[in-house]
Amino acid sequence: MESFIAHNPTSLHFGKDVLSGLGHTLQLYGKKVLLVYGKGSIKKTGLYDKVIGILKEIHAEVYEYNGIRPNPVIEDVDAAAAVGREHGVDVILAVGGGSVIDSAKIISITIPVQHPAWDFITRKTKPLKAIPLVSVLTLAATGTEMNPFAVISNHGEKFKDGYGSPLMYPVHSFLDPQLTFTVPRNYTAYGIADLIAHSFEAWFGAGDATLSDRFILSIVKEAMDYGPALLNDLENYTLREKIMYAATMALNGLTLQGKKSGDWGVHSIGHILSLLYDIPHGASLTIVYPAWLKHIEKNYPDRIGLLGSGIFNESLTSHESIWRIEEMFRSLACPVRLSETGISADKQKIYDTLLFNKVSGANYALKADDLHRIVELFM
Amino acid sequence: MESFIAHNPTSLHFGKDVLSGLGHTLQLYGKKVLLVYGKGSIKKTGLYDKVIGILKEIHAEVYEYNGIRPNPVIEDVDAAAAVGREHGVDVILAVGGGSVIDSAKIISITIPVQHPAWDFITRKTKPLKAIPLVSVLTLAATGTEMNPFAVISNHGEKFKDGYGSPLMYPVHSFLDPQLTFTVPRNYTAYGIADLIAHSFEAWFGAGDATLSDRFILSIVKEAMDYGPALLNDLENYTLREKIMYAATMALNGLTLQGKKSGDWGVHSIGHILSLLYDIPHGASLTIVYPAWLKHIEKNYPDRIGLLGSGIFNESLTSHESIWRIEEMFRSLACPVRLSETGISADKQKIYDTLLFNKVSGANYALKADDLHRIVELFM
Repeated sequence: MESFIAHNPTSLHFGKDVLSGLGHTLQLYGKKVLLVYGKGSIKKTGLYDKVIGILKEIHAEVYEYNGIRPNPVIEDVDAAAAVGREHGVDVILAVGGGSVIDSAKIISITIPVQHPAWDFITRKTKPLKAIPLVSVLTLAATGTEMNPFAVISNHGEKFKDGYGSPLMYPVHSFLDPQLTFTVPRNYTAYGIADLIAHSFEAWFGAGDATLSDRFILSIVKEAMDYGPALLNDLENYTLREKIMYAATMALNGLTLQGKKSGDWGVHSIGHILSLLYDIPHGASLTIVYPAWLKHIEKNYPDRIGLLGSGIFNESLTSHESIWRIEEMFRSLACPVRLSETGISADKQKIYDTLLFNKVSGANYALKADDLHRIVELFM
Repeated sequence: MESFIAHNPTSLHFGKDVLSGLGHTLQLYGKKVLLVYGKGSIKKTGLYDKVIGILKEIHAEVYEYNGIRPNPVIEDVDAAAAVGREHGVDVILAVGGGSVIDSAKIISITIPVQHPAWDFITRKTKPLKAIPLVSVLTLAATGTEMNPFAVISNHGEKFKDGYGSPLMYPVHSFLDPQLTFTVPRNYTAYGIADLIAHSFEAWFGAGDATLSDRFILSIVKEAMDYGPALLNDLENYTLREKIMYAATMALNGLTLQGKKSGDWGVHSIGHILSLLYDIPHGASLTIVYPAWLKHIEKNYPDRIGLLGSGIFNESLTSHESIWRIEEMFRSLACPVRLSETGISADKQKIYDTLLFNKVSGANYALKADDLHRIVELFM
């Protein structure tokens, strides 16, 4: 195992009707609230009215920034931070999925400074403080609710990348599985794929941490035991709850304890597909993973075989494991080739953008040749 | 799943030579340090000198309280708290195993008050603040390094019980597996038994939390894959590290998320055996668990069968599972009957003390008849 310091400061409020504690929690931080949300789905579901009701009860001064896009962009972050800065907000309340909460994390470190958020992402400067962030999650997928990471795009720069700072953990995250009832079938599936992919990134990270490996397999098995069933029963509370909890545990640090890092090569490639073609994050991962596994198979057959055998509870070769993992993604109705999305993609453009973004994995480094072959394999 | 709020404030410093960060960490809290330790084994191993060296480097004012006994007693807590109170210490540094850290937790809430610590344990009054506690762990077993619980005895009152408060989490815990190299074979085994028993208490808790169940099985399997090997290779870093990490994860809240509580019936009975006969905690648990399982088997065959099947990776009945669990404890060279300890125990006295302490489980309540039969079964 690698040495590590484990400390996750987020308070996770999980379960039915946990929003009853939201008002009290917000009051711990002050009166002025920057409410950040997306393109209005929370208005359709009634969640917006519910949250506004809670904010009224505690007599909060509310400033809103809405319209955060899926695959969020840096322009929204700067615009929202300007609103927060102008009004001197005490706390940010992010209501939505990964895109909204990721944006809010970068907003939280951008409000206290005078420069654009992009200076953080390009590592030109480091954040020194953050406005406390409280999140209400509406999509089980990214794990952002209990980690210090965010992913953001800059279309002007043709760049999409992850960014993290210990200041970016939400102070509190509220997870009521009922709030995910209205997530449609395809996005529910992409969320399950995302949590499985996060587990895989940890599995293929560097470092021998056997208990973390067991936790990883536990999370993937949980997702497979209940995920496909959920796709046919979208308002089943018990299934929603199992997937929502698994998604949080898949990327809150637990699976990486004792490892040097996750790999994140597949995520890096997936981000580029989302940047170029606005492919949902989870779908980009199910497209890239089989190709990536096939490409690295000759170098790491044991590790792949161990993963497949662990998930499917039978002794499998690496070859069989890859095939079964591809089938697993298919059982979630997710694409496993780019062509299955119906997008007419430009191979050369993908390849060039991968190179331009210096896409690689932390454990299994990807050079130009590797990227070329992986692109061929997932087209 | 049950609703829950998850938040563990302890920073866990895990790995080889993590003590290099101890001085810096202590300085965050102030200059005056109350150093709490046991009966001197840390002097034999050289750890005491090392810690004193670190304290000198940061020019700490050190006040010592030593002599904390295994199965710690309330008298030591009050005496140590008096030392801390007199000198107005800023931080407590506990160096030792579960007994030392448990005592230090209660010391941390007793220093700020004028009444005896026992008033907390009997729930006469509640703690309102605590002196920050930093721990250096020398025994992989109880999980106290990352939870808010302590177990304490009062021989005058013939009472041994657990106590918990959110104020009692250590702020930092330092776990270097090398510091457990000198733990003798029998106490190493009791520690492994203890972490397995903690996992079992969570397994038999109330509430349907499938992912937590998977985590529980992961921890028990980790303990069984590496524990017996460790008993024959006590200075093997990799094995020590795996067991030390598993012990922390077995009782830091992870396995109970989504459950109402653990059961703790076996622990309650075990505490009484330790109180009466000074039996090491882990050994008391391997004596009681088979008896408890046999007693509850008729009511919960499925749950027991699922546990056995999960640990041993084959389909087992409840009867077979209990037999295999007993064998598992034997493979750790732990007693599974009280008679195997060589203690000439008084059945009636045990039974009376169990009743006097109102021993029960949170999920499977134990009445007088149950206790009577369990005592018969473990003699």
